[in-house]
Amino acid sequence: MPTCSADSLAAMFGANTTNAAGAANFICDQFNTVTTKFIDTTYAIDTTYLLFSAYLVFSMQLGFAMLCAGSVRAKNTMNIMLTNVLDAAAGGLFYYLFGFAFAFGTPSNGFIGKHNFALKDIPSSVFDYSYFLYQWAFAIAAAGITSGSIAERTQFVAYLIYSAFLTGFVYPVVSHWFWSVDGWASASNLNNLFLGSGVIDFAGSGVVHMVGGIAGLYGALIEGPRIGRFDHTGRSVALRGHSASLVVLGTFLLWFGWYGFNPGSFTKILSPYESGNFYGQWSAVGRTAVTTTLAGCTAALTTLFGKRIISGHWNVTDVCNGLLGGFAAITAGCSVVDPWAAVVCGFVAACVLTGCNKLAEKFKYDDPLEAAQLHGGCGAWGVIFTGLFAKEKYVNEVYPGKPGRPYGLLMGGGVKLLAAHVVQIMVIFGFVSATMGPLFFILHKLKLLRISPEDETAGMDMTRHGGFAYVYHDEDSHKNNGLPTRTIETSTTPT
Amino acid sequence: MPTCSADSLAAMFGANTTNAAGAANFICDQFNTVTTKFIDTTYAIDTTYLLFSAYLVFSMQLGFAMLCAGSVRAKNTMNIMLTNVLDAAAGGLFYYLFGFAFAFGTPSNGFIGKHNFALKDIPSSVFDYSYFLYQWAFAIAAAGITSGSIAERTQFVAYLIYSAFLTGFVYPVVSHWFWSVDGWASASNLNNLFLGSGVIDFAGSGVVHMVGGIAGLYGALIEGPRIGRFDHTGRSVALRGHSASLVVLGTFLLWFGWYGFNPGSFTKILSPYESGNFYGQWSAVGRTAVTTTLAGCTAALTTLFGKRIISGHWNVTDVCNGLLGGFAAITAGCSVVDPWAAVVCGFVAACVLTGCNKLAEKFKYDDPLEAAQLHGGCGAWGVIFTGLFAKEKYVNEVYPGKPGRPYGLLMGGGVKLLAAHVVQIMVIFGFVSATMGPLFFILHKLKLLRISPEDETAGMDMTRHGGFAYVYHDEDSHKNNGLPTRTIETSTTPT
Amino acid sequence: MPTCSADSLAAMFGANTTNAAGAANFICDQFNTVTTKFIDTTYAIDTTYLLFSAYLVFSMQLGFAMLCAGSVRAKNTMNIMLTNVLDAAAGGLFYYLFGFAFAFGTPSNGFIGKHNFALKDIPSSVFDYSYFLYQWAFAIAAAGITSGSIAERTQFVAYLIYSAFLTGFVYPVVSHWFWSVDGWASASNLNNLFLGSGVIDFAGSGVVHMVGGIAGLYGALIEGPRIGRFDHTGRSVALRGHSASLVVLGTFLLWFGWYGFNPGSFTKILSPYESGNFYGQWSAVGRTAVTTTLAGCTAALTTLFGKRIISGHWNVTDVCNGLLGGFAAITAGCSVVDPWAAVVCGFVAACVLTGCNKLAEKFKYDDPLEAAQLHGGCGAWGVIFTGLFAKEKYVNEVYPGKPGRPYGLLMGGGVKLLAAHVVQIMVIFGFVSATMGPLFFILHKLKLLRISPEDETAGMDMTRHGGFAYVYHDEDSHKNNGLPTRTIETSTTPT
Repeated sequence: MPTCSADSLAAMFGANTTNAAGAANFICDQFNTVTTKFIDTTYAIDTTYLLFSAYLVFSMQLGFAMLCAGSVRAKNTMNIMLTNVLDAAAGGLFYYLFGFAFAFGTPSNGFIGKHNFALKDIPSSVFDYSYFLYQWAFAIAAAGITSGSIAERTQFVAYLIYSAFLTGFVYPVVSHWFWSVDGWASASNLNNLFLGSGVIDFAGSGVVHMVGGIAGLYGALIEGPRIGRFDHTGRSVALRGHSASLVVLGTFLLWFGWYGFNPGSFTKILSPYESGNFYGQWSAVGRTAVTTTLAGCTAALTTLFGKRIISGHWNVTDVCNGLLGGFAAITAGCSVVDPWAAVVCGFVAACVLTGCNKLAEKFKYDDPLEAAQLHGGCGAWGVIFTGLFAKEKYVNEVYPGKPGRPYGLLMGGGVKLLAAHVVQIMVIFGFVSATMGPLFFILHKLKLLRISPEDETAGMDMTRHGGFAYVYHDEDSHKNNGLPTRTIETSTTPT
Repeated sequence: MPTCSADSLAAMFGANTTNAAGAANFICDQFNTVTTKFIDTTYAIDTTYLLFSAYLVFSMQLGFAMLCAGSVRAKNTMNIMLTNVLDAAAGGLFYYLFGFAFAFGTPSNGFIGKHNFALKDIPSSVFDYSYFLYQWAFAIAAAGITSGSIAERTQFVAYLIYSAFLTGFVYPVVSHWFWSVDGWASASNLNNLFLGSGVIDFAGSGVVHMVGGIAGLYGALIEGPRIGRFDHTGRSVALRGHSASLVVLGTFLLWFGWYGFNPGSFTKILSPYESGNFYGQWSAVGRTAVTTTLAGCTAALTTLFGKRIISGHWNVTDVCNGLLGGFAAITAGCSVVDPWAAVVCGFVAACVLTGCNKLAEKFKYDDPLEAAQLHGGCGAWGVIFTGLFAKEKYVNEVYPGKPGRPYGLLMGGGVKLLAAHVVQIMVIFGFVSATMGPLFFILHKLKLLRISPEDETAGMDMTRHGGFAYVYHDEDSHKNNGLPTRTIETSTTPT
Repeated sequence: MPTCSADSLAAMFGANTTNAAGAANFICDQFNTVTTKFIDTTYAIDTTYLLFSAYLVFSMQLGFAMLCAGSVRAKNTMNIMLTNVLDAAAGGLFYYLFGFAFAFGTPSNGFIGKHNFALKDIPSSVFDYSYFLYQWAFAIAAAGITSGSIAERTQFVAYLIYSAFLTGFVYPVVSHWFWSVDGWASASNLNNLFLGSGVIDFAGSGVVHMVGGIAGLYGALIEGPRIGRFDHTGRSVALRGHSASLVVLGTFLLWFGWYGFNPGSFTKILSPYESGNFYGQWSAVGRTAVTTTLAGCTAALTTLFGKRIISGHWNVTDVCNGLLGGFAAITAGCSVVDPWAAVVCGFVAACVLTGCNKLAEKFKYDDPLEAAQLHGGCGAWGVIFTGLFAKEKYVNEVYPGKPGRPYGLLMGGGVKLLAAHVVQIMVIFGFVSATMGPLFFILHKLKLLRISPEDETAGMDMTRHGGFAYVYHDEDSHKNNGLPTRTIETSTTPT
């Protein structure tokens, strides 16, 4: 919006105009009022967009809770749901006190933020409360991923410790590197683009999914498989989750929430690329929703037919996992690729997930939610995919201010972006290994990590959480004999 | 927004002004900047509105999944949920490749679109990605309706075929007729209004609900009822769904999503009817949310008391179906009727649904979700209702550019709109009969439609989808005797 | 937005300008067009914001339904879910016909509104349809709270009566007092601020939560505890809910919806506090989302550790209730306190809830959802909290037009606000006691309130609602012996 120069205008009105300065000022004052009104309008629209996106991302936590609950055995339902509730709750406090400051507190040295602890100096011209809320909803997703890998055998106190460390430190630091304007590898660090390119991890295939998945990998590796997951001959035994309905419910909720996760990562929608044109950031936001959808859909269909060939039946939980793998993969490049490329992304993601699952079985790695395979494996593919398929036009629109950036190798954009993305994978793998690996190991050595075999066999809900998650029983007995029987629960309150 | 004419302004400044042309250009440039800024702002607001509406419509797919799951027997839960996931996933690919082009690819001959395959030439000044996403969410709803009618007895491969055909061809063609600006019966085809009126099927009581419901009718008729649905004396036997909680969950989610379906169908919210007035399209959007709410509420209450009188108890799943019948009915006219008329709409919808269910029982028609009755029957009533109650003022506001249009018969608007709507019902019935009828019949003849009696008795989850949806059992055994017993699932993986 | 005075501008152009009046009119016409365009834009943005907030608040009804269902025994699931569906459905009709008029029909005498019955004269410059929809979603929440207190033992007809009375009269009247611009104790009644302050109950810790909770208290007190809730020695016996998964699902949905409840209560987002500044009502909206989040998170964590100490296990349903208690408490002050204060609010709310539950047990008060304790107790704390912690700057921004208002006692704002809030608690307690108390008592005397002991033992679903909510049984039998057995439900339809 150009500023109205009253002096220039007054000069053009000239000496014969009765009050040239007055008229010019009068007109320019009106324009200035219009300008400030547009500023207000833009803040209101962008905040509306960002807040409702944040609410959608938050709904993914419910999706995780239901997906996890349905994927574990009934005897551990309360346990896993409690971890999901606490990811959000404890994450809220930690991210408020430390996490956001580590992640986005600028200016920084490029490695860790150091301002805005406990929302100090917020709102500012850079960050408003809505931005914090949006980033909090992201932070709690990472911890949620990890809790899936180590489900059904982890002490609750270990969960409390790793979750706080992951949400409060590990994840914020990684997000600082790749997303803060000061981050050493951020695509927005225009003064100092890593490899001349920076990493384009738009909504976090690396920053969120790989971090959560690799953390889960270490936890599950150190704990070892659940009792009975591999029989005495070493053969894989499926420990089926207790409710496919909850799995489907969770999957759809994650799909729903992903529309906040990916398109929402623009954080602003009222940014024209060329003022007055139908094509602007609102189009890019819509395109991101479309690429996200198509990647997930393709991965789901690929998994459906792939699993039909391999296993002989049409499996809904596998299709759900395939779908989520497609989403995890497209998350990095969703804003900078064409819809047809998203189809490619989803197809390969389904293959990657199937491959990782084969590998996991071979190495007797037990991950009840396939979290390391899905978020780690497909997330890593997504990072590579972006280095291959990012389109020049979109890269320059979504990351403006630095024309001539490297873009996808297969789109003719050279190898630099891909190189930066390979580095991202290595760095994330290294950093999470160096932080979460030792943490889980120490917990293991302190006998704080895994529950006892007796407790594992009995189930954690009974031994640690005050009882089973479900009480259908009284009803069933009616059903069986058609007569009303004793219907009162007789377990006394623990007080 | 008027354009600023610098020449006129310069002439008015006149010769005595030092630089009249310069001043005029200066001022008009500023106004032109303001104009383009308003264009940007309008795109951002309308896209925000449309995208979040699309997300809500998408959440209906989750609603369908839960409603369907809860309404079938436990042994077929995985099967029906898989169809719901695939409606969305396969629908995504088909609608991207073909469906959207058939539905909205203009210019067309009025019968089928032929542009924009695989989103070619999108975004344009007419369609942005967000519009595609919104329409995709609609397309998958139609297939979801049909899957309910043929639940618990249909081969999965038949489902894959009809679902692709319905989402990729039948539904797009019907939506082209009534919703595309080129459609032969579209109320937006201003140059050539069918019967001088066009069909006002605002959000698709006909286009979506009747199409899905009639398709289901043919499927269910050709397959015949489930084993045991009518006993050897021909008496109706209720095959109750396995979870009322899932039914209520699904119903509420559909209600939630309907706020995207109906009010969202405006696709734009920033359209003043008279600039600077409190009353504009935003009011019409709100009114649409209110009429939708009131129709559903009235239908639910009518069903509650009606069923109490008929059956002697207060039935929650009947109330849920009544509610949804009210929504299906108001969908056509939601934007052009007054709130009080919506109450009438809902009341009659509940009666129509009850009547259709009586009829279905009489003719031994078995539809596990009552989909043909609910979406077909109440949808048809909604089409008629709009022809009776559409209000002149609202019709002209919502469908602008052609003053003096016909409106509701009972509102004094003549018989033309109603006539067009009767034609819509016949045409939809005919076209769906001519396409989906033969398709289901061919599948039937090829022995691809219905599963074997053995599989039907055992349940499809066990025979086709790798196992039951629920495993509460181990837990119950603990509960019963208080001792931990063997808790490991021993079914081996199918690889 | 200043109006453009063409006369002043013409005078400044002066006599030498060829057509001074013409030029001035030309320019001012353009500015006037801009002004009306901004009016349209503001309506569109604010309506988008309000409608989507209303949809979120509506989703809380689904949350209540799932929370309630999971918290009761399986045999009463259909009953409680039906009440939740009907809260929304009957509430829709009653609030449309009467409720909204009683609550917001201005001008009024300060005690009860008397305009806008059946949405007469709406939309107006004051209220649009979206505002009605938003307030309806609030109204049905109050009745939902009450149904939790009296669950598992109340006749359905009693439910229908109290629910209509509460949604149609009691709640609207209370909301008139504190929220209508004419309300005698409203903080927006600028001409006549109660105690010079008015009550700041922003989103209704008092108006919604206390009203619902206190109504529940009377219902539950008059009915007495469920059979078996206290054994013959008077010892408390837990009657555990049948599904922790539904409890967690419901809790997360309520959390999700609360982002519509609290931040949405601004009803407008495009209101600058100082035009052209990054800080405006959009920031206050975001801050409200943050305070809401932090209060809930803190209350959840406090409850987790508190219950661990008291009961020896980590309890997910207690954590859920603690979380909701935090939300209920922050609801009054969410917009006018700092994030750190929200942490204090949540901490105390968890203690209040624990204390109220102890008290309830002592007095043998049985409330299956802890609704009176949670919504009544924590709601009352929230009202007090606001009187203590409301910040001067925020109070003046959120309630503009009356500088120098009293604010929180501990923030240096004097005792007036706190005094007004203490009066609010007493008045709500008194009014609900005087209306709902007698109503429940009369129902009790007419033998319309409580079901028979036989029905209570057998469960209401079987005796009143046509059957059990769940039918997993056929499946289980397969599971047990691995053989398919009879799989058809043989219960005949009741027609």
